[in-house]
Order: sequence, then C-alpha cells, then structure tokens
Amino acid sequence: MRAVDIIAHKRDGKELSREELEFLITGYVAGTIPDYQVSAWAMAVFFRGMSPRETAALTDVMLKSGAVMDLSGVPGPLVDKHSTGGVGDKTSLILAPLAAALGIRDPMMFGRALGHTGGTLDKLESIPGYRTSLGAAEFKAILARDGFAMTGQTKEVVPADRLLYALRDVTSTVESIPLITASILSKKAAEGASALVFDVKYGSGAFMKEAAEGEKLARSLVHTGAAMGKTIIALLTDMDEPLGNMVGNFLEVEESLDCLEGAGLPDKDGSPPSTGPADLMEVTLELGARMAVLGGKAASPEEGRKLCEECIAGGKPRELFLRNVESQGGDPRKLLELRGKWRSPVSAEIRVPPGAEGAFIRRVDAWKTGRAAVVLGVGRDRAGDPVSPTAGIQFHRKSGAAVKAGDRIMTVWAAGEEGLAAALPQLEDAVEYGREPPPARRLILKEISGTTMEGPGQ
Amino acid sequence: MRAVDIIAHKRDGKELSREELEFLITGYVAGTIPDYQVSAWAMAVFFRGMSPRETAALTDVMLKSGAVMDLSGVPGPLVDKHSTGGVGDKTSLILAPLAAALGIRDPMMFGRALGHTGGTLDKLESIPGYRTSLGAAEFKAILARDGFAMTGQTKEVVPADRLLYALRDVTSTVESIPLITASILSKKAAEGASALVFDVKYGSGAFMKEAAEGEKLARSLVHTGAAMGKTIIALLTDMDEPLGNMVGNFLEVEESLDCLEGAGLPDKDGSPPSTGPADLMEVTLELGARMAVLGGKAASPEEGRKLCEECIAGGKPRELFLRNVESQGGDPRKLLELRGKWRSPVSAEIRVPPGAEGAFIRRVDAWKTGRAAVVLGVGRDRAGDPVSPTAGIQFHRKSGAAVKAGDRIMTVWAAGEEGLAAALPQLEDAVEYGREPPPARRLILKEISGTTMEGPGQ
Repeated sequence: MRAVDIIAHKRDGKELSREELEFLITGYVAGTIPDYQVSAWAMAVFFRGMSPRETAALTDVMLKSGAVMDLSGVPGPLVDKHSTGGVGDKTSLILAPLAAALGIRDPMMFGRALGHTGGTLDKLESIPGYRTSLGAAEFKAILARDGFAMTGQTKEVVPADRLLYALRDVTSTVESIPLITASILSKKAAEGASALVFDVKYGSGAFMKEAAEGEKLARSLVHTGAAMGKTIIALLTDMDEPLGNMVGNFLEVEESLDCLEGAGLPDKDGSPPSTGPADLMEVTLELGARMAVLGGKAASPEEGRKLCEECIAGGKPRELFLRNVESQGGDPRKLLELRGKWRSPVSAEIRVPPGAEGAFIRRVDAWKTGRAAVVLGVGRDRAGDPVSPTAGIQFHRKSGAAVKAGDRIMTVWAAGEEGLAAALPQLEDAVEYGREPPPARRLILKEISGTTMEGPGQ
Repeated sequence: MRAVDIIAHKRDGKELSREELEFLITGYVAGTIPDYQVSAWAMAVFFRGMSPRETAALTDVMLKSGAVMDLSGVPGPLVDKHSTGGVGDKTSLILAPLAAALGIRDPMMFGRALGHTGGTLDKLESIPGYRTSLGAAEFKAILARDGFAMTGQTKEVVPADRLLYALRDVTSTVESIPLITASILSKKAAEGASALVFDVKYGSGAFMKEAAEGEKLARSLVHTGAAMGKTIIALLTDMDEPLGNMVGNFLEVEESLDCLEGAGLPDKDGSPPSTGPADLMEVTLELGARMAVLGGKAASPEEGRKLCEECIAGGKPRELFLRNVESQGGDPRKLLELRGKWRSPVSAEIRVPPGAEGAFIRRVDAWKTGRAAVVLGVGRDRAGDPVSPTAGIQFHRKSGAAVKAGDRIMTVWAAGEEGLAAALPQLEDAVEYGREPPPARRLILKEISGTTMEGPGQ
C-alpha cells in the first residue's frame, strides 16, 4: 500500500477502504507518512467528500489512535451533549447537572476553545479552585457519584485528531463535513457515552454560517454515529445572536446558576418567561428533552421537556452543580459569595446612540460580539494564552427590544484599558437598529435523527 | 499575505493574483513555505484549474526562480520543438539539424527522462564522446556556429519546477493541465526561444492517454505561451504505437541518421515511402513544416513541408548533424563506423506465434513496448540509474502488416540475460493480431494555434 495511491483514489472519487484509511492515519501519527501527503489527501476529501461508511471508518481509525475512556463500571444510561460552538453558549453547565438529576450519567470532556467561541473549560476554571484535569479514575468516581464529571481532554485522547486538525488549520482544509464529523465524533466516542445529543449551530457566531451547511453536518454526525453504533439526535439551532445575556467566563457561570434557580424558565401557564434568558433556556430545555429521551427517561421530546422544567423547578440540578464544584476542587460557598460581585475593575457601558435610526434592536451580531470578547480577554486566539475570569459582556437588551437614545444595551468588563478601548467600537458595531421590530427568532430550526445510512457524503 | 489564504482562494475557485503565486512559489523555493501547504494548493489546483492568465503568471514566476539563457547575441529566428514524450520518438535528432539547414536556430535543452518514454539526452550520450553538459557560453557558441546545440538542463534552470514536480509526484497532483503547462513552458521559456512547436502526444505510450486530454494540454500551452509573448503551434499526434522502427539509444541515433539520409521520405511523386520509417518521418516533416513557418521560412505548413523534404534530400541536415557531433565532443567517423554493428551481445527475436489468430498486426502497444524497453536497459525508473547505449528493439513489422506464423516481428537486444527474459513476454504481449487489417492510422490528429486568451482553464 502506498500513500500516493490512496491520495489518487480519493482524488478520483473512489471510496477508500478501512485498510487504506488505517494505513494513512496510523502512518501519519507514527511519522512514516509525511504531512505533505496527508494535506493533499485532506484537500481531495474537501472536494470529493466521503461516504457515511468511509467517514465512520475514518472516525474509528482516529478514535483508536489514542486512549478510549472505559466507563464499563459506571451504571448507565450514559448520555452526553456536544455543541459545535457559539457565543454565550453555557448550556453544558446547565444540562450536565440537569441530566444527572434525571438519573442520566453525563461524561463531559472538552477541548480547549480558540477564537470567538467560548470554551467550557475556561468558564469552569473561573470558579476558584475548580480542577479540569481529572485522571481517568477520578473522572469515573465523580461521574458515578455525582452523575456527571467535567474534564479537559488529555493528550492521549485521539492524537490523530490533534495532528490532523493542526495540519488542516494551515492548509485550508478545515471546512470539510466528513473531516469535521470524524474530528468531533472520534473525540466524543473516546469519552465513552453510548448516546449523544448534538447542538449544531448555524449563523454568524457559529462555525457553519448557513443553515444548509449546518444541516449537512448534523446529518453526517447522525449517520456516521449510527454506523459506529451510537444513537445520536442533532438539533440545528440559531447562533446568529449570542445565547443568553452573559458573555464571559465567571459571568456565564453566574448565568448558569441563575438558570438552575429557575431564571428563563417558562411561566407555569406555559407563557414565555417574564425574566431571565429566555433564548438560552429554550435551547437548553430542547436539548435536555432529547437527553431525557435518549436516556430512557421520557417517551417523547415533549414529555422530556416537561420533565426538565419540573426537575429544575425542584432544585436538584442546582444542588448537583454545587456538589460537582466541591468534587472538582472548588468552594461552593466562595462561588455563591463572589456571585454578582466579582468583576473586572475596568468597565464601560454601551448605550443606544443619539443618531440610531428607529426604535428597535434588530440584531446583535454573534460573530462581532465573540471577536470583541477575545479582545476583552474572555477568549484567546493562540493556544496557551491566558484568559481573564472576570472580563465579559452583560446584555441588558437584545434583539426585539424597543429602545430610545441613551438606553443601556451592555455593560462591558475588560482585562485592561487597551482591550476595552479596542472592543467598544466593535461591540457598538455589533448592534443593529431599525424602525421595525425584527421577525421572531426561530431558535430550533430542525431536529435530525434516524439510523439510516443514506445522506450526503460531503 | 498568508499561504493558508492563498490555498483557500484557490480551493474556493478564485483566480490567484501574480503576487499570490509569487509569494507561494518563491516562498517554497526559499524554504519559508512548507511543502504541506504547497501540496494542498496543488490539489486545489487539480480540482479548480487555473485561468490562462493565472497559468501564465505561475509559469513566469517559476521561470524567474532560476537562470534564464540569454541568447540576445545569437541571430534569429530562434525556434524550438518540444515533445510531451513518447516511445521511439527521435524527431528532435532529425528536426534540429533540419531547422538549422533552413536557417533557423534551435536552442535545444532537455530534462532527464524517467520511465517508459525515451530521453534525448540518453540517445545523444550513446554517441561515444558526445557531451550533453554544455556551459552557457559554449552552448551559445555552438548554436551560433552550427545552427543548433543540444544540452541537458542545469540545476539552475527553473529550480521551482524541480521542487514542485517532486512534490506533485508523491501527492497525486501530477495530472493537472495548468501545472503541466507551467512545468513545460517555464523550462522552455528558460532556454530563450521566441517561438515553439509542441508535439503533444496522446495514446497508450503518451502521458495523456486520451486525445481530448491531449487537446486540452495543447490549448493550454498555446494560450499560456501567447500570454507570455511566445508564438506557439501545437500538433496533437498519435503515440499509441512506437514511432519508427527503432526503440533504444544508439539504435535511435542510427534511425535518425537513416532519416537524414532520406529514409522514410515520401517518393518524388508524393506516394508513401517504399522503405524506412514512414510514421516517424510523417510526424517529423509536419513538425518541421511548422518550425519553417514560425521561423519565417515558409508561408504555409504545406510550403514548409515541401521545403523540409527538399532540404533533407539535399543532404545539408545530415552534414550539420555530423558537425554538431564533432562540436559536442563526439567522433563522426567513429559513429559511422559503429552504425549497424554496435549491438548488445544478448539478443533474441520475436516471431509471429503459431497460435496467433488472423493474419494482420492490429496494433503494437506503445506503453507495453516502453515498459519493456526500461527492463531491457534502455531507460530508467530511478533518477541517476545508468542506461545501456546498445539495448533496444528493432521492429521488422508494425501495425497493418500482413503476417503468417514464424514471421519476424522484432529483434531485441538487452543489457543482460535477466532483462531479456523479463522483457520478451512483455513485448510478445504488446503485439495484437487480428483477422482484419486495422483502420489506417491518423498520425496528426489536429493543429492548435492562435493567440486568443480563451480556452479551458483545467
């Protein structure tokens, strides 16, 4: 077998065999196949796509390049949720204790975030003392006791993906549905969950800007997962505007706590919540409903959603969240003490400008907000750079709000004066005003599930 | 400017600017842009193609990566011929002295051949004493005095192509019309001719197996050449069967001498030649006719062809050939002495087998013949391997011949017994028999010329 022939097969549109993919990927990890052959292959995949069977084989080969978490001793059901990344997306912090309270076990493993999308590890690490590097034994013990555990991926998890992703990043071969699918699924399969809910986001703040691209990825994840024996439900959700009212690290922990205490929950009569982040909880509850279904706790998403609402109202998820903080080295009392008080000293407010046309916020651009957040110190563009726990943005109003000049839109906290000065015009630019109210947002566009092998290859 | 963005532009079907191509190629040659980015770019070019303007810019950037022959002191017209490679193709050895005899100057530079296609340098070097590594000053002096000079490309000529070709070879990105065009034209432009005749071959023994692919390459060469200020005529010629009756090194020098003495020339009344390699001379004369036109020696290909036939019959080209042998270190008397006598001691004959169906040779496969020639020692698969001057094949009959069992088809000479044993079944397999005579071969399928910028990009 020769790498040059494998590249030619893919270039000519042939389906690669598992043996060919194994030869290429294990050779790459072992250093016997050079990166210039792998990058040419990746570009050929970009153009030719991969069949569901091929994508499943690639995922499995990548998975087996490293360590796989053995959760056989942990009683199930084991269900996890994964998001393709967004701005203000703290659903994991709410969903993990919620699922645990429903009797589901959620083994959560995260990679480090780069760029405009927030990283759950950075949010957790803003809780003083919280440890995100658990060994396998401790991870399993906390998972079994608390119902969920949250850790960073170790270097032993899917080394093929680490190498391949770094190469794709510098060769413009990131945007390939089968390669994205294998990258995501190999890491999720390594954490040992048997069922998965995917939150595939689309819109300006998402990796996929268009709903059609997001749907392709969702279908690819569902079909490839099925070929690997995993049950997957994907929701296609709107990431054109930041989710919730907080963008930051400790700020998002606070908002998660608020939600675990009922903020953003619909009123008892089913009408929209009068206070709290309605958009965030809408997405969280719809994802939770699917976790309940996959965990065998509900027969339908409707039933699952009702269960989730009642469960949060009962207070158990909040209790489990604080127990997990303690289990992973944090101090729950300290967390509650800091809540609402711990802020960066450098701050400013953004108000509706005098010259703003019209009287409604039409849109808050998630991409621009996310980029400004990096400038403020919330995120990083280079691996290893530190982030600020307290920098970030609080929205007082978002799209749909009727406004007049001088109304407060955001409070902005920065790690330093320089970052603040750079971020403010970007954030002002992120808000779009208009004379008419915007059309109602549709947060959940589509549910994709099923176990068929059909579906687009690219 | 970043290489990753240049790759993305090409991946997304954009036309790259000259600046982008310059950044990429000069960076690659300088070692600041890594091979894994260049191979991903080459694969994107494979899929997206390049516009004529882009191909011309790439060619020019590659050309300027190295030394360009300055022929400003040599009186013109300067016209060269280049073939895309075939089996038994010795037209260069006949055309260079023929063009010189017509008053054209032909600066011939060759790369080393690999694989099944013969190399002109190997043929010339089979002439005892002949030197193919001329310095620029000597090359120019011989060119000015004899009307042509023949030398190998130095390492200083288009280093970008040497690097890029080696990378394309191991990343399955060889088969791209714009990349092939830039590779060929950059080297031809470096030798300083102002007009070029291209012999673009198609068929089993050619790089392009299909006529349609060959035509695409021919059009790309003509259009890209025009954009670079070179006048180019391309002929699309048949390489499904070896050209002429000799395949070898010294054997092909001998056949060239035969042709320079009139073998294969049409009879005075215009009817096909009664002896000699009619197919070889047909292609040679058609190419020579275009060189005469481009050199301003004839108003039409018909007039050019007549001029070439008369010129050969007059004996001047033969005289110039022998003068060049002397100019480049060979001994013309020794060459004439060895002629017809210098053969490998290991040989065999291939005859029509008793079980052969029918009574006609339908076809002699050029690819199989060329591969067998490598096994005999005529060519090499690895750069630097030595070749035998005297190994090779003499055809006594080719396609169209009526045969009966026992008739002699080929005499085969090998560098050793082992090669002979391996090559004989391959050569037997190269001959196809049938009950009906084959359709008449059309050696020249098409002429492509013009200076328009339109044409297929890929």
